Amino acid sequence: MSIKSIAFIGLGAMGAPMAENLVKRQFRVTGFDMRQEARQALVNAGGHAADSAKAAATGADALVLMVVNAAQARSVLFEAGALEALAPSASVFLMATCPPGEAEAIAAAVEKTGRHLVDAPVSGGIAGARGATLTIMVGATQESFALARPVLDAMGDKVFHVGFKPGQGATVKTVNQLLCGVHIAAAAEALSLAEKAGIDGALLFEIMGGSAASSWMLKDRGPRMLLDDAPIASAVDIFVKDLGIVLDAGRSAKTALPLAAAAHQMFLASSGLGHGARDDSQVVRAYRALNAKPANDP
Amino acid sequence: MSIKSIAFIGLGAMGAPMAENLVKRQFRVTGFDMRQEARQALVNAGGHAADSAKAAATGADALVLMVVNAAQARSVLFEAGALEALAPSASVFLMATCPPGEAEAIAAAVEKTGRHLVDAPVSGGIAGARGATLTIMVGATQESFALARPVLDAMGDKVFHVGFKPGQGATVKTVNQLLCGVHIAAAAEALSLAEKAGIDGALLFEIMGGSAASSWMLKDRGPRMLLDDAPIASAVDIFVKDLGIVLDAGRSAKTALPLAAAAHQMFLASSGLGHGARDDSQVVRAYRALNAKPANDP
Repeated sequence: MSIKSIAFIGLGAMGAPMAENLVKRQFRVTGFDMRQEARQALVNAGGHAADSAKAAATGADALVLMVVNAAQARSVLFEAGALEALAPSASVFLMATCPPGEAEAIAAAVEKTGRHLVDAPVSGGIAGARGATLTIMVGATQESFALARPVLDAMGDKVFHVGFKPGQGATVKTVNQLLCGVHIAAAAEALSLAEKAGIDGALLFEIMGGSAASSWMLKDRGPRMLLDDAPIASAVDIFVKDLGIVLDAGRSAKTALPLAAAAHQMFLASSGLGHGARDDSQVVRAYRALNAKPANDP
Repeated sequence: MSIKSIAFIGLGAMGAPMAENLVKRQFRVTGFDMRQEARQALVNAGGHAADSAKAAATGADALVLMVVNAAQARSVLFEAGALEALAPSASVFLMATCPPGEAEAIAAAVEKTGRHLVDAPVSGGIAGARGATLTIMVGATQESFALARPVLDAMGDKVFHVGFKPGQGATVKTVNQLLCGVHIAAAAEALSLAEKAGIDGALLFEIMGGSAASSWMLKDRGPRMLLDDAPIASAVDIFVKDLGIVLDAGRSAKTALPLAAAAHQMFLASSGLGHGARDDSQVVRAYRALNAKPANDP
Protein backbone atom coordinates (compact mmCIF):
# COMPACT_ATOMS: atom_id res chain seq x y z
CA MET A 1 0.00 0.00 0.00
CA SER A 2 3.04 2.32 -0.13
CA ILE A 3 3.39 5.12 -2.67
CA LYS A 4 5.38 4.12 -5.74
CA SER A 5 4.17 6.27 -8.65
CA ILE A 6 3.88 10.05 -8.35
CA ALA A 7 2.41 12.69 -10.63
CA PHE A 8 4.23 15.99 -10.10
CA ILE A 9 2.54 19.19 -11.27
CA GLY A 10 4.53 22.44 -11.40
CA LEU A 11 8.18 22.03 -12.43
CA GLY A 12 9.32 25.57 -11.60
CA ALA A 13 12.40 26.82 -9.74
CA MET A 14 11.35 24.87 -6.64
CA GLY A 15 9.30 22.07 -8.22
CA ALA A 16 11.92 20.86 -10.69
CA PRO A 17 14.60 19.98 -8.10
CA MET A 18 11.95 18.54 -5.76
CA ALA A 19 10.73 16.21 -8.52
CA GLU A 20 14.31 15.20 -9.29
CA ASN A 21 14.90 14.35 -5.63
CA LEU A 22 11.89 12.00 -5.80
CA VAL A 23 13.40 10.35 -8.89
CA LYS A 24 16.66 9.83 -6.98
CA ARG A 25 14.75 8.00 -4.24
CA GLN A 26 13.40 5.55 -6.84
CA PHE A 27 9.86 6.86 -7.10
CA ARG A 28 8.36 6.63 -10.59
CA VAL A 29 7.76 10.35 -11.25
CA THR A 30 5.66 11.67 -14.12
CA GLY A 31 5.80 15.43 -14.40
CA PHE A 32 3.64 18.06 -16.01
CA ASP A 33 4.35 21.74 -16.55
CA MET A 34 3.15 24.15 -19.23
CA ARG A 35 6.77 24.65 -20.34
CA GLN A 36 8.10 21.91 -22.63
CA GLU A 37 11.73 22.51 -21.54
CA ALA A 38 10.74 21.87 -17.92
CA ARG A 39 9.18 18.54 -18.86
CA GLN A 40 12.27 17.61 -20.92
CA ALA A 41 14.59 18.42 -18.00
CA LEU A 42 12.70 15.95 -15.79
CA VAL A 43 12.97 13.25 -18.46
CA ASN A 44 16.71 13.93 -18.72
CA ALA A 45 16.95 13.45 -14.95
CA GLY A 46 15.36 9.98 -15.19
CA GLY A 47 11.69 10.89 -14.77
CA HIS A 48 8.78 10.83 -17.18
CA ALA A 49 6.65 13.55 -18.73
CA ALA A 50 3.00 13.84 -19.65
CA ASP A 51 1.10 16.24 -21.92
CA SER A 52 -1.48 17.19 -19.31
CA ALA A 53 -2.01 17.13 -15.57
CA LYS A 54 -4.69 14.48 -16.02
CA ALA A 55 -2.40 12.27 -18.12
CA ALA A 56 0.33 12.55 -15.47
CA ALA A 57 -2.14 11.63 -12.73
CA THR A 58 -3.78 8.68 -14.41
CA GLY A 59 -3.50 5.67 -12.12
CA ALA A 60 -0.80 7.30 -9.93
CA ASP A 61 -0.50 6.57 -6.20
CA ALA A 62 0.15 10.25 -5.45
CA LEU A 63 -0.20 13.74 -6.88
CA VAL A 64 2.19 16.50 -5.80
CA LEU A 65 0.89 20.03 -6.40
CA MET A 66 3.78 22.51 -6.43
CA VAL A 67 1.81 25.21 -8.22
CA VAL A 68 1.60 28.98 -7.58
CA ASN A 69 -1.51 29.19 -5.41
CA ALA A 70 -4.76 27.59 -4.29
CA ALA A 71 -6.61 28.60 -7.47
CA GLN A 72 -4.13 26.67 -9.61
CA ALA A 73 -4.37 23.68 -7.27
CA ARG A 74 -8.18 23.69 -7.64
CA SER A 75 -7.88 24.01 -11.39
CA VAL A 76 -5.58 20.99 -11.67
CA LEU A 77 -7.64 18.84 -9.29
CA PHE A 78 -11.19 19.68 -10.24
CA GLU A 79 -11.18 21.28 -13.71
CA ALA A 80 -8.34 19.47 -15.46
CA GLY A 81 -9.60 16.18 -13.99
CA ALA A 82 -6.41 15.09 -12.23
CA LEU A 83 -8.19 14.10 -9.00
CA GLU A 84 -10.57 11.59 -10.58
CA ALA A 85 -7.76 10.14 -12.71
CA LEU A 86 -5.71 9.11 -9.64
CA ALA A 87 -5.77 5.63 -8.11
CA PRO A 88 -8.81 5.24 -5.79
CA SER A 89 -6.95 5.66 -2.50
CA ALA A 90 -4.18 7.95 -3.75
CA SER A 91 -2.60 10.78 -1.74
CA VAL A 92 -2.72 14.43 -2.85
CA PHE A 93 0.18 16.57 -1.60
CA LEU A 94 -0.82 20.25 -1.48
CA MET A 95 2.60 21.95 -1.25
CA ALA A 96 1.82 25.43 -2.61
CA THR A 97 1.37 28.27 -0.11
CA CYS A 98 -2.42 28.47 0.37
CA PRO A 99 -4.69 30.26 2.83
CA PRO A 100 -5.53 27.79 5.62
CA GLY A 101 -9.24 27.99 4.79
CA GLU A 102 -8.53 27.10 1.17
CA ALA A 103 -6.41 24.12 2.21
CA GLU A 104 -9.29 22.91 4.42
CA ALA A 105 -11.83 23.29 1.62
CA ILE A 106 -9.63 21.47 -0.91
CA ALA A 107 -9.02 18.72 1.66
CA ALA A 108 -12.76 18.23 2.19
CA ALA A 109 -13.35 17.86 -1.55
CA VAL A 110 -10.45 15.43 -1.99
CA GLU A 111 -11.32 13.31 1.04
CA LYS A 112 -14.92 13.01 -0.16
CA THR A 113 -13.56 10.89 -3.03
CA GLY A 114 -11.86 8.52 -0.56
CA ARG A 115 -8.39 9.90 -1.23
CA HIS A 116 -5.85 11.36 1.23
CA LEU A 117 -5.02 15.06 1.43
CA VAL A 118 -1.60 15.97 2.80
CA ASP A 119 -1.46 19.72 3.51
CA ALA A 120 2.31 20.19 3.24
CA PRO A 121 3.63 23.68 2.42
CA VAL A 122 7.39 24.19 2.44
CA SER A 123 10.01 26.75 3.33
CA GLY A 124 13.71 26.82 2.54
CA GLY A 125 13.72 28.26 -0.96
CA ILE A 126 15.50 27.00 -4.04
CA ALA A 127 18.57 25.93 -2.06
CA GLY A 128 16.40 23.79 0.20
CA ALA A 129 14.57 22.30 -2.78
CA ARG A 130 17.85 21.35 -4.48
CA GLY A 131 19.51 19.94 -1.38
CA ALA A 132 16.39 18.08 -0.17
CA THR A 133 16.69 20.17 2.98
CA LEU A 134 13.28 21.83 2.90
CA THR A 135 11.23 22.46 6.01
CA ILE A 136 7.83 20.82 5.45
CA MET A 137 4.88 21.68 7.71
CA VAL A 138 2.26 18.95 7.55
CA GLY A 139 -1.40 18.97 8.50
CA ALA A 140 -2.86 15.50 7.87
CA THR A 141 -4.46 12.55 9.64
CA GLN A 142 -2.07 10.10 11.27
CA GLU A 143 -2.80 7.55 8.53
CA SER A 144 -2.27 10.03 5.68
CA PHE A 145 0.95 11.28 7.28
CA ALA A 146 2.39 7.78 7.73
CA LEU A 147 1.70 7.01 4.07
CA ALA A 148 3.19 10.36 2.97
CA ARG A 149 6.33 10.23 5.06
CA PRO A 150 8.74 8.53 2.59
CA VAL A 151 7.71 11.02 -0.12
CA LEU A 152 8.20 14.00 2.20
CA ASP A 153 11.56 12.68 3.45
CA ALA A 154 12.80 12.63 -0.14
CA MET A 155 12.25 16.39 -0.43
CA GLY A 156 12.95 17.79 3.04
CA ASP A 157 14.98 16.99 6.12
CA LYS A 158 12.83 18.94 8.58
CA VAL A 159 9.41 17.31 8.30
CA PHE A 160 7.01 18.40 11.05
CA HIS A 161 3.58 16.88 11.63
CA VAL A 162 2.01 20.01 13.10
CA GLY A 163 -1.58 18.83 13.36
CA PHE A 164 -4.10 16.17 12.34
CA LYS A 165 -6.28 18.55 10.32
CA PRO A 166 -5.46 19.72 6.79
CA GLY A 167 -5.15 23.52 6.99
CA GLN A 168 -2.88 23.33 10.03
CA GLY A 169 0.21 22.97 7.81
CA ALA A 170 -0.97 26.00 5.87
CA THR A 171 -1.46 27.85 9.16
CA VAL A 172 2.13 27.23 10.23
CA LYS A 173 3.38 28.38 6.83
CA THR A 174 1.17 31.45 7.22
CA VAL A 175 2.70 32.16 10.64
CA ASN A 176 6.13 31.73 9.06
CA GLN A 177 5.27 34.39 6.48
CA LEU A 178 3.90 36.68 9.21
CA LEU A 179 7.27 36.59 10.96
CA CYS A 180 9.29 36.94 7.76
CA GLY A 181 7.25 39.92 6.54
CA VAL A 182 7.26 41.71 9.90
CA HIS A 183 11.01 41.14 10.31
CA ILE A 184 11.80 42.61 6.87
CA ALA A 185 9.64 45.66 7.53
CA ALA A 186 11.14 46.05 11.03
CA ALA A 187 14.65 46.10 9.58
CA ALA A 188 13.57 48.76 7.09
CA GLU A 189 11.92 50.80 9.86
CA ALA A 190 15.09 50.57 11.97
CA LEU A 191 17.22 51.68 9.03
CA SER A 192 14.86 54.56 8.37
CA LEU A 193 15.24 55.91 11.92
CA ALA A 194 19.01 55.45 11.89
CA GLU A 195 19.46 57.17 8.52
CA LYS A 196 17.49 60.16 9.78
CA ALA A 197 20.14 60.53 12.51
CA GLY A 198 23.02 60.23 10.06
CA ILE A 199 24.04 56.68 11.05
CA ASP A 200 25.70 54.58 8.35
CA GLY A 201 23.33 51.77 7.32
CA ALA A 202 26.02 49.14 6.74
CA LEU A 203 27.50 49.79 10.19
CA LEU A 204 24.01 49.69 11.72
CA PHE A 205 23.26 46.25 10.27
CA GLU A 206 26.70 44.99 11.30
CA ILE A 207 26.00 46.01 14.91
CA MET A 208 22.38 44.79 14.96
CA GLY A 209 23.33 41.47 13.33
CA GLY A 210 25.58 40.69 16.29
CA SER A 211 23.12 41.64 19.02
CA ALA A 212 19.79 40.54 20.50
CA ALA A 213 18.19 42.74 17.81
CA SER A 214 19.16 40.27 15.09
CA SER A 215 16.87 38.30 12.83
CA TRP A 216 17.50 35.98 9.91
CA MET A 217 15.81 38.53 7.65
CA LEU A 218 17.81 41.48 9.00
CA LYS A 219 21.03 39.69 8.12
CA ASP A 220 19.78 38.57 4.72
CA ARG A 221 17.70 41.53 3.52
CA GLY A 222 19.37 44.36 5.47
CA PRO A 223 22.45 44.69 3.25
CA ARG A 224 20.23 44.63 0.14
CA MET A 225 18.23 47.60 1.51
CA LEU A 226 21.38 49.69 1.04
CA LEU A 227 21.63 48.90 -2.70
CA ASP A 228 19.99 51.10 -5.33
CA ASP A 229 19.55 48.09 -7.58
CA ALA A 230 19.18 45.12 -5.25
CA PRO A 231 19.21 41.69 -6.94
CA ILE A 232 15.74 40.16 -6.75
CA ALA A 233 15.55 37.12 -4.49
CA SER A 234 11.81 37.45 -3.86
CA ALA A 235 9.61 40.38 -4.88
CA VAL A 236 7.78 43.02 -2.83
CA ASP A 237 4.53 41.77 -4.41
CA ILE A 238 5.10 38.27 -2.97
CA PHE A 239 4.78 39.79 0.51
CA VAL A 240 1.83 41.91 -0.61
CA LYS A 241 0.23 38.52 -1.38
CA ASP A 242 1.61 36.52 1.57
CA LEU A 243 0.85 39.10 4.26
CA GLY A 244 -2.57 39.33 2.59
CA ILE A 245 -2.96 35.58 3.23
CA VAL A 246 -1.81 36.15 6.83
CA LEU A 247 -4.46 38.82 7.38
CA ASP A 248 -7.15 36.72 5.66
CA ALA A 249 -6.25 33.87 8.02
CA GLY A 250 -6.54 36.32 10.92
CA ARG A 251 -9.97 37.42 9.68
CA SER A 252 -11.22 33.84 9.33
CA ALA A 253 -9.99 32.98 12.81
CA LYS A 254 -11.15 36.36 14.24
CA THR A 255 -7.60 37.09 15.38
CA ALA A 256 -6.16 40.62 15.62
CA LEU A 257 -2.66 40.86 14.10
CA PRO A 258 -1.56 44.50 14.55
CA LEU A 259 2.09 44.07 13.50
CA ALA A 260 1.26 42.02 10.42
CA ALA A 261 -1.34 44.61 9.45
CA ALA A 262 1.14 47.49 9.80
CA ALA A 263 3.82 45.59 7.85
CA HIS A 264 1.32 44.80 5.09
CA GLN A 265 0.59 48.52 4.69
CA MET A 266 4.27 49.20 4.07
CA PHE A 267 4.59 46.44 1.43
CA LEU A 268 1.38 47.69 -0.18
CA ALA A 269 2.69 51.26 -0.26
CA SER A 270 5.99 50.11 -1.72
CA SER A 271 4.11 48.27 -4.47
CA GLY A 272 1.87 51.30 -5.02
CA LEU A 273 4.95 53.48 -5.44
CA GLY A 274 5.91 51.29 -8.38
CA HIS A 275 8.34 48.91 -6.65
CA GLY A 276 6.24 45.72 -6.60
CA ALA A 277 8.60 43.78 -8.86
CA ARG A 278 11.73 44.83 -6.94
CA ASP A 279 13.44 42.71 -4.29
CA ASP A 280 11.35 42.60 -1.10
CA SER A 281 14.15 44.41 0.75
CA GLN A 282 12.91 47.45 -1.17
CA VAL A 283 9.98 47.84 1.21
CA VAL A 284 12.52 50.31 2.60
CA ARG A 285 11.49 52.60 -0.28
CA ALA A 286 8.08 53.06 1.32
CA TYR A 287 9.82 54.05 4.57
CA ARG A 288 12.09 56.44 2.68
CA ALA A 289 9.05 57.98 0.98
CA LEU A 290 7.55 58.57 4.44
CA ASN A 291 10.74 59.51 6.27
CA ALA A 292 12.98 61.22 3.73
CA LYS A 293 16.48 61.99 4.94
CA PRO A 294 16.85 65.74 5.61
CA ALA A 295 18.23 67.50 2.54
CA ASN A 296 21.20 68.88 4.47
CA ASP A 297 22.29 65.45 5.68
CA PRO A 298 25.40 63.85 4.21
CA MET B 1 47.01 62.80 28.75
CA SER B 2 45.55 59.27 28.87
CA ILE B 3 42.83 58.28 31.32
CA LYS B 4 44.18 56.73 34.54
CA SER B 5 41.64 57.44 37.29
CA ILE B 6 37.94 56.72 36.84
CA ALA B 7 34.90 57.56 38.96
CA PHE B 8 32.23 54.90 38.40
CA ILE B 9 28.64 55.74 39.37
CA GLY B 10 26.03 52.98 39.48
CA LEU B 11 27.32 49.61 40.71
CA GLY B 12 24.24 47.55 39.83
CA ALA B 13 23.93 44.19 38.07
CA MET B 14 25.67 45.59 34.99
CA GLY B 15 27.77 48.36 36.54
CA ALA B 16 29.51 46.24 39.19
CA PRO B 17 31.18 43.80 36.77
CA MET B 18 31.98 46.64 34.35
CA ALA B 19 33.79 48.53 37.13
CA GLU B 20 35.65 45.36 38.10
CA ASN B 21 36.79 44.88 34.51
CA LEU B 22 38.26 48.40 34.62
CA VAL B 23 40.13 47.50 37.83
CA LYS B 24 41.54 44.42 36.09
CA ARG B 25 42.94 46.63 33.35
CA GLN B 26 44.84 48.68 35.96
CA PHE B 27 42.64 51.76 36.00
CA ARG B 28 42.30 53.39 39.41
CA VAL B 29 38.53 53.02 39.92
CA THR B 30 36.58 54.82 42.63
CA GLY B 31 32.98 53.72 42.78
CA PHE B 32 29.82 55.17 44.20
CA ASP B 33 26.43 53.55 44.64
CA MET B 34 23.68 54.17 47.19
CA ARG B 35 24.09 50.60 48.45
CA GLN B 36 26.98 50.09 50.89
CA GLU B 37 27.41 46.43 49.95
CA ALA B 38 27.91 47.39 46.30
CA ARG B 39 30.69 49.81 47.30
CA GLN B 40 32.29 47.15 49.51
CA ALA B 41 32.25 44.59 46.70
CA LEU B 42 34.23 46.97 44.49
CA VAL B 43 36.78 47.51 47.26
CA ASN B 44 37.09 43.74 47.67
CA ALA B 45 37.78 43.51 43.94
CA GLY B 46 40.69 45.95 44.22
CA GLY B 47 38.88 49.24 43.60
CA HIS B 48 38.09 52.15 45.88
CA ALA B 49 34.82 53.55 47.22
CA ALA B 50 33.56 57.04 47.97
CA ASP B 51 30.66 58.32 50.03
CA SER B 52 29.18 60.45 47.30
CA ALA B 53 29.28 60.85 43.52
CA LYS B 54 31.11 64.14 43.94
CA ALA B 55 33.74 62.60 46.22
CA ALA B 56 34.29 59.78 43.70
CA ALA B 57 34.65 62.29 40.86
CA THR B 58 37.02 64.71 42.58
CA GLY B 59 40.09 65.13 40.39
CA ALA B 60 39.32 62.03 38.30
CA ASP B 61 40.25 61.77 34.61
CA ALA B 62 36.93 60.16 33.76
CA LEU B 63 33.41 59.64 35.05
CA VAL B 64 31.39 56.59 33.99
CA LEU B 65 27.63 56.92 34.40
CA MET B 66 25.98 53.48 34.49
CA VAL B 67 22.78 54.76 36.08
CA VAL B 68 19.14 53.95 35.29
CA ASN B 69 18.20 56.80 32.98
CA ALA B 70 18.96 60.31 31.75
CA ALA B 71 17.35 61.95 34.80
CA GLN B 72 19.77 60.15 37.13
CA ALA B 73 22.69 61.08 34.89
CA ARG B 74 21.69 64.77 35.07
CA SER B 75 21.27 64.54 38.81
CA VAL B 76 24.78 63.12 39.31
CA LEU B 77 26.42 65.57 36.92
CA PHE B 78 24.65 68.82 37.68
CA GLU B 79 22.95 68.52 41.08
CA ALA B 80 25.37 66.31 43.01
CA GLY B 81 28.27 68.34 41.60
CA ALA B 82 30.22 65.47 40.03
CA LEU B 83 30.86 67.34 36.78
CA GLU B 84 32.60 70.35 38.31
CA ALA B 85 34.64 68.09 40.61
CA LEU B 86 36.29 66.27 37.70
CA ALA B 87 39.72 67.18 36.30
CA PRO B 88 39.42 70.13 33.86
CA SER B 89 39.63 68.10 30.64
CA ALA B 90 38.08 64.89 31.94
CA SER B 91 35.85 62.54 29.93
CA VAL B 92 32.25 61.75 30.88
CA PHE B 93 30.99 58.33 29.70
CA LEU B 94 27.19 58.33 29.39
CA MET B 95 26.46 54.58 29.28
CA ALA B 96 22.85 54.47 30.49
CA THR B 97 20.10 54.06 27.86
CA CYS B 98 18.94 57.65 27.19
CA PRO B 99 16.74 59.26 24.55
CA PRO B 100 19.04 60.62 21.80
CA GLY B 101 17.83 64.20 22.44
CA GLU B 102 18.72 63.87 26.14
CA ALA B 103 22.18 62.57 25.31
CA GLU B 104 22.70 65.57 23.00
CA ALA B 105 21.55 68.03 25.66
CA ILE B 106 23.75 66.49 28.36
CA ALA B 107 26.69 66.53 25.92
CA ALA B 108 26.22 70.23 25.23
CA ALA B 109 26.25 71.06 28.96
CA VAL B 110 29.33 68.90 29.62
CA GLU B 111 31.29 70.18 26.61
CA LYS B 112 30.60 73.78 27.64
CA THR B 113 32.86 73.15 30.67
CA GLY B 114 35.70 72.03 28.37
CA ARG B 115 35.23 68.34 29.16
CA HIS B 116 34.59 65.41 26.77
CA LEU B 117 31.26 63.63 26.45
CA VAL B 118 31.31 60.05 25.24
CA ASP B 119 27.77 58.90 24.41
CA ALA B 120 28.28 55.15 24.84
CA PRO B 121 25.22 52.99 25.59
CA VAL B 122 25.70 49.24 25.75
CA SER B 123 23.96 46.01 24.90
CA GLY B 124 24.81 42.46 25.86
CA GLY B 125 23.26 42.20 29.31
CA ILE B 126 24.80 40.93 32.52
CA ALA B 127 26.72 38.16 30.72
CA GLY B 128 28.33 40.74 28.44
CA ALA B 129 29.15 43.01 31.37
CA ARG B 130 30.84 40.15 33.26
CA GLY B 131 32.79 38.81 30.29
CA ALA B 132 33.83 42.25 29.01
CA THR B 133 32.03 41.30 25.80
CA LEU B 134 29.55 44.16 25.67
CA THR B 135 28.54 45.84 22.44
CA ILE B 136 29.22 49.58 22.89
CA MET B 137 27.72 52.11 20.45
CA VAL B 138 29.67 55.36 20.58
CA GLY B 139 28.74 58.84 19.44
CA ALA B 140 31.69 61.18 20.13
CA THR B 141 34.19 63.43 18.39
CA GLN B 142 37.26 61.73 16.97
CA GLU B 143 39.39 63.18 19.77
CA SER B 144 37.01 62.13 22.55
CA PHE B 145 36.70 58.64 21.06
CA ALA B 146 40.48 58.16 20.81
CA LEU B 147 40.88 59.18 24.46
CA ALA B 148 37.98 56.90 25.50
CA ARG B 149 39.02 53.80 23.58
CA PRO B 150 41.17 52.04 26.23
CA VAL B 151 38.38 52.48 28.79
CA LEU B 152 35.74 51.13 26.38
CA ASP B 153 37.93 48.19 25.35
CA ALA B 154 38.15 47.14 29.01
CA MET B 155 34.37 46.70 29.13
CA GLY B 156 33.35 45.52 25.66
CA ASP B 157 34.80 43.65 22.70
CA LYS B 158 32.46 45.12 20.08
CA VAL B 159 33.14 48.86 20.25
CA PHE B 160 31.59 50.78 17.34
CA HIS B 161 32.20 54.47 16.65
CA VAL B 162 28.84 55.11 15.00
CA GLY B 163 29.06 58.89 14.61
CA PHE B 164 30.92 62.03 15.60
CA LYS B 165 27.97 63.59 17.43
CA PRO B 166 26.89 62.63 20.95
CA GLY B 167 23.33 61.33 20.63
CA GLN B 168 24.21 59.07 17.70
CA GLY B 169 25.27 56.27 20.08
CA ALA B 170 21.94 56.68 21.84
CA THR B 171 20.18 56.55 18.46
CA VAL B 172 21.77 53.21 17.60
CA LYS B 173 20.81 51.83 21.02
CA THR B 174 17.29 53.14 20.40
CA VAL B 175 17.17 51.35 17.03
CA ASN B 176 18.40 48.21 18.80
CA GLN B 177 15.48 48.43 21.22
CA LEU B 178 13.06 49.06 18.35
CA LEU B 179 14.09 45.77 16.77
CA CYS B 180 14.13 43.85 20.06
CA GLY B 181 10.67 45.09 21.06
CA VAL B 182 9.10 44.48 17.64
CA HIS B 183 10.63 41.00 17.44
CA ILE B 184 9.26 39.98 20.85
CA ALA B 185 5.78 41.26 19.98
CA ALA B 186 5.96 39.58 16.54
CA ALA B 187 6.75 36.22 18.15
CA ALA B 188 3.79 36.67 20.49
CA GLU B 189 1.53 37.63 17.58
CA ALA B 190 2.67 34.56 15.63
CA LEU B 191 2.00 32.32 18.62
CA SER B 192 -1.42 33.87 19.06
CA LEU B 193 -2.46 33.03 15.48
CA ALA B 194 -1.03 29.51 15.71
CA GLU B 195 -2.74 28.75 19.03
CA LYS B 196 -6.06 29.82 17.58
CA ALA B 197 -5.63 27.08 14.96
CA GLY B 198 -4.70 24.46 17.56
CA ILE B 199 -0.97 24.38 16.74
CA ASP B 200 1.37 23.42 19.59
CA GLY B 201 3.42 26.48 20.61
CA ALA B 202 6.62 24.59 21.42
CA LEU B 203 6.55 22.87 18.03
CA LEU B 204 5.81 26.19 16.32
CA PHE B 205 8.86 27.87 17.87
CA GLU B 206 11.03 24.85 17.05
CA ILE B 207 10.04 25.13 13.38
CA MET B 208 10.28 28.92 13.20
CA GLY B 209 13.64 28.93 14.99
CA GLY B 210 15.14 26.86 12.17
CA SER B 211 13.70 28.87 9.29
CA ALA B 212 13.98 32.32 7.70
CA ALA B 213 11.32 33.39 10.23
CA SER B 214 13.82 33.20 13.08
CA SER B 215 15.01 36.01 15.29
CA TRP B 216 17.28 36.10 18.34
CA MET B 217 14.26 37.15 20.41
CA LEU B 218 12.00 34.41 19.04
CA LYS B 219 14.53 31.79 20.15
CA ASP B 220 15.11 33.42 23.53
CA ARG B 221 11.66 34.69 24.52
CA GLY B 222 9.46 32.26 22.53
CA PRO B 223 9.84 29.29 24.91
CA ARG B 224 9.16 31.56 27.90
CA MET B 225 5.85 32.68 26.33
CA LEU B 226 4.63 29.12 26.88
CA LEU B 227 5.26 29.21 30.65
CA ASP B 228 2.60 30.33 33.11
CA ASP B 229 5.28 31.59 35.45
CA ALA B 230 8.17 32.65 33.23
CA PRO B 231 11.40 33.57 35.03
CA ILE B 232 11.99 37.32 34.73
CA ALA B 233 14.99 38.21 32.57
CA SER B 234 13.74 41.70 31.75
CA ALA B 235 10.29 43.10 32.55
CA VAL B 236 7.37 44.11 30.34
CA ASP B 237 7.66 47.62 31.80
CA ILE B 238 11.25 47.94 30.51
CA PHE B 239 9.87 47.71 26.99
CA VAL B 240 7.01 50.05 27.87
CA LYS B 241 9.83 52.50 28.68
CA ASP B 242 12.26 51.60 25.89
CA LEU B 243 9.70 51.55 23.07
CA GLY B 244 8.51 54.86 24.56
CA ILE B 245 12.06 56.18 24.04
CA VAL B 246 11.98 54.78 20.48
CA LEU B 247 8.75 56.63 19.71
CA ASP B 248 9.99 59.83 21.38
CA ALA B 249 13.10 59.63 19.17
CA GLY B 250 10.81 59.17 16.17
CA ARG B 251 8.79 62.24 17.21
CA SER B 252 11.91 64.38 17.62
CA ALA B 253 13.22 63.28 14.24
CA LYS B 254 9.74 63.48 12.62
CA THR B 255 9.99 59.82 11.63
CA ALA B 256 6.98 57.51 11.33
CA LEU B 257 7.56 54.13 13.00
CA PRO B 258 4.36 52.11 12.48
CA LEU B 259 5.66 48.73 13.70
CA ALA B 260 7.27 50.18 16.83
CA ALA B 261 4.06 52.05 17.58
CA ALA B 262 1.94 48.91 17.24
CA ALA B 263 4.36 46.88 19.38
CA HIS B 264 4.36 49.60 22.06
CA GLN B 265 0.57 49.35 22.29
CA MET B 266 0.82 45.64 23.05
CA PHE B 267 3.44 46.14 25.81
CA LEU B 268 1.33 48.98 27.22
CA ALA B 269 -1.78 46.79 27.22
CA SER B 270 0.11 43.95 28.88
CA SER B 271 1.26 46.34 31.60
CA GLY B 272 -2.25 47.75 31.93
CA LEU B 273 -3.59 44.22 32.42
CA GLY B 274 -1.34 43.97 35.48
CA HIS B 275 1.65 42.17 33.95
CA GLY B 276 4.19 45.03 33.93
CA ALA B 277 6.56 43.33 36.36
CA ARG B 278 6.45 39.98 34.56
CA ASP B 279 9.06 38.79 32.07
CA ASP B 280 8.77 40.71 28.79
CA SER B 281 7.83 37.46 27.01
CA GLN B 282 4.49 37.92 28.74
CA VAL B 283 3.47 40.58 26.22
CA VAL B 284 1.81 37.43 24.86
CA ARG B 285 -0.80 37.94 27.60
CA ALA B 286 -2.05 41.05 25.82
CA TYR B 287 -2.41 39.00 22.63
CA ARG B 288 -4.22 36.25 24.53
CA ALA B 289 -6.55 38.84 26.05
CA LEU B 290 -7.35 40.02 22.50
CA ASN B 291 -7.34 36.64 20.79
CA ALA B 292 -8.52 34.12 23.38
CA LYS B 293 -8.32 30.52 22.28
CA PRO B 294 -11.83 29.18 21.51
CA ALA B 295 -13.30 27.52 24.59
CA ASN B 296 -13.80 24.23 22.76
CA ASP B 297 -10.15 24.00 21.73
CA PRO B 298 -7.90 21.44 23.41
